[in-house]
Amino acid sequence: MRFTPRDNTFFELLAESAQQLVEGSNILAQITGAEGSDRKKLAKRMSEIEHAGDEATHAIIKRLNSTFVTPFDRDDIYNLASGLDDCLDYMDEAAERIVLYKIDELPDRVDDQVEILRRMAELTATAMPGLRSMNELHDYWVEINRLENQADKAYRKLISHLFEDVKDPIQLMKQREVVEVLEKAADAFEKVANFVETIAVKEA
Amino acid sequence: MRFTPRDNTFFELLAESAQQLVEGSNILAQITGAEGSDRKKLAKRMSEIEHAGDEATHAIIKRLNSTFVTPFDRDDIYNLASGLDDCLDYMDEAAERIVLYKIDELPDRVDDQVEILRRMAELTATAMPGLRSMNELHDYWVEINRLENQADKAYRKLISHLFEDVKDPIQLMKQREVVEVLEKAADAFEKVANFVETIAVKEA
Amino acid sequence: MRFTPRDNTFFELLAESAQQLVEGSNILAQITGAEGSDRKKLAKRMSEIEHAGDEATHAIIKRLNSTFVTPFDRDDIYNLASGLDDCLDYMDEAAERIVLYKIDELPDRVDDQVEILRRMAELTATAMPGLRSMNELHDYWVEINRLENQADKAYRKLISHLFEDVKDPIQLMKQREVVEVLEKAADAFEKVANFVETIAVKEA
Repeated sequence: MRFTPRDNTFFELLAESAQQLVEGSNILAQITGAEGSDRKKLAKRMSEIEHAGDEATHAIIKRLNSTFVTPFDRDDIYNLASGLDDCLDYMDEAAERIVLYKIDELPDRVDDQVEILRRMAELTATAMPGLRSMNELHDYWVEINRLENQADKAYRKLISHLFEDVKDPIQLMKQREVVEVLEKAADAFEKVANFVETIAVKEA
Repeated sequence: MRFTPRDNTFFELLAESAQQLVEGSNILAQITGAEGSDRKKLAKRMSEIEHAGDEATHAIIKRLNSTFVTPFDRDDIYNLASGLDDCLDYMDEAAERIVLYKIDELPDRVDDQVEILRRMAELTATAMPGLRSMNELHDYWVEINRLENQADKAYRKLISHLFEDVKDPIQLMKQREVVEVLEKAADAFEKVANFVETIAVKEA
Repeated sequence: MRFTPRDNTFFELLAESAQQLVEGSNILAQITGAEGSDRKKLAKRMSEIEHAGDEATHAIIKRLNSTFVTPFDRDDIYNLASGLDDCLDYMDEAAERIVLYKIDELPDRVDDQVEILRRMAELTATAMPGLRSMNELHDYWVEINRLENQADKAYRKLISHLFEDVKDPIQLMKQREVVEVLEKAADAFEKVANFVETIAVKEA
């Protein structure tokens, strides 16, 4: 299969966006592990990355709208860029909630959720440059779907345990929301993989 | 009005998706009526249907992306397929929450919500084959909108009663969420009807 | 920059939609200030505006689908019309919750949120006719983004205070939800500004 990219900048911008996901997921892992004052500093760093992500997405969309010829369907690039941004937004929201709610202790299984997000971010960042050649995207797609199923199971177990173990309703509300947002982040990574599949099918 | 479908498979796939909604809504009605261990089995069956629904949607989108000529606008079929999938997702989420949260008793009015969803699912499944000929879609659209208004009223009453009657905040959180997701399912059916209207207007 | 609109009705319909946002935001400000029975009447008025907004959006989309030549990209008008509708929906949802939950007293800072929404609504209504000539849309876009940042800060402070000050979990749930929906309204206004920017960049 041959493919001639017409504007390489899109690939570079998308790869950059995906790289921010890796950094964001690493900081998130530190936040769920760290405590108190450290968390605040980490969440601030996370918020800066989220801001940079917004600007990257904005740059992609602006270029998209002002470019006559794009390597793929305009809509597909738009969806992909917005989708990458959503992943980062949810990870940032999780970090922010942990700090805003002053949550001291998170359930152990939250680490499972975050670890899956880290794997997803790495896979996504590795796949983006592959868009240029459309190589090996299938493996990426399959693996993301497998991880999303795993995330789903971790999430259900967490919710079920929270409602059984946490007797203070306000604590429950706080923890439950962090767990919820992390699940949304995993879903967002799956959506990105679906957009990549859409692009791959069209170009096949 | 004449209309020549170019790829009949789309209609068959969409009708199949809508048929899953009927089955899903019937199981949901059994879950809100059933108790304990039965619910678990029913929710498992629901989750299988939801899985089948995901695959049906995926098949439609894949075919959409690899087909040069589609009977309607590509985007409209995409929206319709994703919209049908959303209906099923919300009904599955409601079933899952009832089981996960081990909710013993649901407020009576939840049955009203579910009954409306069943009617909506049946109407939607009946309308899908009509897309081929564009006949009688107007009645379907009007009736779905009427049902959605009814769902809205049932939902508001439920929320208002829950906050008055349920004194245990954790019970309140659980029940409220089920009611919320059922309301989202009704909204999703209305969205599907709007997509159908969009298609009908374009073809008129 | 010259620009020849092909169907002026779209501009008129969009400007009308935006005008409803101004009225909606003013009523919202009265609701957060008013009490008891008055609120009910105001929320009813709000719900009528929301209904009118739905119909306006519906009219735009119907015209969009039946018109061969539109002044801009079909998708951009669709996004803009739906985006304006979302702003109104969230403001209506906030009004409805305040009444449904019978919330007597809202935290003071909620007024800050609502005041920002009023400014956003006015700016948006002023910008819509500018679409015809593409003049001064940049200032609008910058100002909306500035206000959204301000809304974000007000929201975070509110959430953090609610979780510290409100000890009754059911009260907390209620108030928190109103604050949440108001934040979503501010986000929706920012999205509208982004759609406007998209249109402006394409036409530049």
